[in-house]
Amino acid sequence: MPLPPLVEPAGPLTAAERTRYSRHLLVPGIGELGQRRLRNARVLVVGAGGLGSPVLLYLAAAGVGTLGIADDDVVDESNLQRQVVHASDAVGRAKVDSAADAVRRTDPSVTVVTHHLRLDASNALQVLDGYDLVVDGTDTFATRYLVADACTLTGTPLVWGSVLRFDGQVAVFWSDPPAGHGYPAVTYRDVFAHPPAPGEVPSCAEAGVLGAVCGAVGSAMAVEALKLIVGFGDPLLGRVATYDALRARWREVPVRPDPHAHRVTALSDLDATCAVPPTDLGAPTPPGEASERGTVGSRTLTAPELAALLAARARGESDLELLDVREAAEHELVSIPGARLLPLSALRTGGGLTSLDPSRPLVLHCKGGQRSAQALQVLHQHGFTDVRHLQGGILAWIDQVDPSLPRY
Amino acid sequence: MPLPPLVEPAGPLTAAERTRYSRHLLVPGIGELGQRRLRNARVLVVGAGGLGSPVLLYLAAAGVGTLGIADDDVVDESNLQRQVVHASDAVGRAKVDSAADAVRRTDPSVTVVTHHLRLDASNALQVLDGYDLVVDGTDTFATRYLVADACTLTGTPLVWGSVLRFDGQVAVFWSDPPAGHGYPAVTYRDVFAHPPAPGEVPSCAEAGVLGAVCGAVGSAMAVEALKLIVGFGDPLLGRVATYDALRARWREVPVRPDPHAHRVTALSDLDATCAVPPTDLGAPTPPGEASERGTVGSRTLTAPELAALLAARARGESDLELLDVREAAEHELVSIPGARLLPLSALRTGGGLTSLDPSRPLVLHCKGGQRSAQALQVLHQHGFTDVRHLQGGILAWIDQVDPSLPRY
Repeated sequence: MPLPPLVEPAGPLTAAERTRYSRHLLVPGIGELGQRRLRNARVLVVGAGGLGSPVLLYLAAAGVGTLGIADDDVVDESNLQRQVVHASDAVGRAKVDSAADAVRRTDPSVTVVTHHLRLDASNALQVLDGYDLVVDGTDTFATRYLVADACTLTGTPLVWGSVLRFDGQVAVFWSDPPAGHGYPAVTYRDVFAHPPAPGEVPSCAEAGVLGAVCGAVGSAMAVEALKLIVGFGDPLLGRVATYDALRARWREVPVRPDPHAHRVTALSDLDATCAVPPTDLGAPTPPGEASERGTVGSRTLTAPELAALLAARARGESDLELLDVREAAEHELVSIPGARLLPLSALRTGGGLTSLDPSRPLVLHCKGGQRSAQALQVLHQHGFTDVRHLQGGILAWIDQVDPSLPRY
Repeated sequence: MPLPPLVEPAGPLTAAERTRYSRHLLVPGIGELGQRRLRNARVLVVGAGGLGSPVLLYLAAAGVGTLGIADDDVVDESNLQRQVVHASDAVGRAKVDSAADAVRRTDPSVTVVTHHLRLDASNALQVLDGYDLVVDGTDTFATRYLVADACTLTGTPLVWGSVLRFDGQVAVFWSDPPAGHGYPAVTYRDVFAHPPAPGEVPSCAEAGVLGAVCGAVGSAMAVEALKLIVGFGDPLLGRVATYDALRARWREVPVRPDPHAHRVTALSDLDATCAVPPTDLGAPTPPGEASERGTVGSRTLTAPELAALLAARARGESDLELLDVREAAEHELVSIPGARLLPLSALRTGGGLTSLDPSRPLVLHCKGGQRSAQALQVLHQHGFTDVRHLQGGILAWIDQVDPSLPRY
């Protein structure tokens, strides 16, 4: 059963608009009235990345009147494999600007509002203000919970999606749907009660993603947004649709309000490890003091310091052991010469510990410094004392020691 | 179970390529070897429209080495609502050129080959030559059967998709898949044994389509293409996946080789009504002679002639009745003043016949002349003799009489 339209119709279409959107006007359930609702709609798309790309392109093409784009990032070379809204020559540009250009190329009549910022508890409600609908295509848990909570507080419907490797998920969340249509008030926290522990769920940057999966999932998100605006079809409210690209199968999981879910009364920022870039996480903390980030205090070392130690080892002046605690595919993609692979996931279950000599100084590294900090904690618990980890991970090594290596 | 990779790997990746495609290198099942296969792959995309758009964008972003684009059309204003590969300012350009630009913007290292032609029995095998894989995103049955038959004859795997209104379908067809992997040799004709009669299945131009459905279906097609090239996952060979965007549900239908299917031994062009633009179909044929196109011979009239007759009617000098035989949504989108709606679909079941006065001269029109020719045949069978139909339909009316009306 459709929900009532979310948006009142704009005035009559011009002849040019009737031509441009004719394929919508011909569809029962959309028609001219539906197209006028799209013209009046204001949609905020959070994240102009893998999912945001198809969402923005298809909402713009559909003639959604106002598209807000919130993103604090710049286009990186490694984004281009899936973030099709950004052209190759956009590397280094703010994603909101590159995406806004793409939206205007698609339909110059769309009003684009760019929010070049990281959403946090202090600004989220202000950014959401005035939008009819939010589409969340971000890939950090901190932003997901924040956007979801802001939508819950304001009663704004939320179209959410996520992808990893070959898998994707799509759902509609709404704390306050119109009554009497048989739809439950399901929010993100009803389905995902607690944020995962730092490092518990890998990101696309660690585990990769098949680019076209973003297209399938993001397009389905755009479909759900259009359904809510115009008021046709059965929205994915009370269901999470999952896409398994390996098996080419979509399934759906029914979801219901969780009476024990955290009741959102105000916005708060999650533990920073969910949101802060990994490169910020290698900063030293006082020895012995457990920080809020789940790391134990320890010495860190910088990339040039590590380079000097490895040079000393090559001269036989050090018996340093360098451990790469990332996953095998990351080690294969790019590694520091002489590093031995021992993934954090293995260390956590005690794997590989007996292969380590407690008398040798250990240096750990990961991609950006987060997982190596956690690995250091594991090794401390097992009695290893002479352990340090590389500040900023292999990305810092590439930046400061060997720029010829591929970043990822 | 995966099929063996379709393509041999290219040479080692450069550091820049390792960065650009890093999110694929991190995925188990793709990795560096898979990315090198993509680099070596040659894929022909037939149709640079609604489905071709996401297919081309995601195959280009994935680093497929050579992309062929076959299309004979130019970008029309009414395409922009879903054909996101074309920018607004591309209206009037050849679709192959506009799409090639978009591919190069996405990844300049992709080799693009444009085939600006309509595939037919005389050129299809030559165009397909040298491609590892064909992706068919066309929307005419003539081209679909032709492409499918050409793939059958050459043993080329085919990723196929279609969309209409809120619905989509995706499948892989292959007359000669590698043996021993449990996949049947299913071709398009095993599933769709016979082309529909002209006018039996409406096109997107008549029935419309929700633009974002193209994104969901086309992206799933790109996923299937990537799986075949690299050799991971379970391809959609032996299954047709269907997407119902209204209900937000994907299903799958198992399909098997049909022992009674037409055995393809050579290419032939289907009945022209499947392929020829509707505006070509209103040409007069000798009275009383049934043409191959399913029309009966009759007088046609031109748009200016109809305008003169309507002016005479306004002066009380004619009692002409003008019938619009399109569907209601099309009539609502744009209509000729004074025309009465009586859809061909209703006429076919005898609906509305009693409302017609056999003594009044009748003029029929549709969008381009095809359906009005069929309606004329129906009316002849019911004894109406003074019937003509508008050559080129309402599109000709807009072009020649009232350009202020919206085309669609």
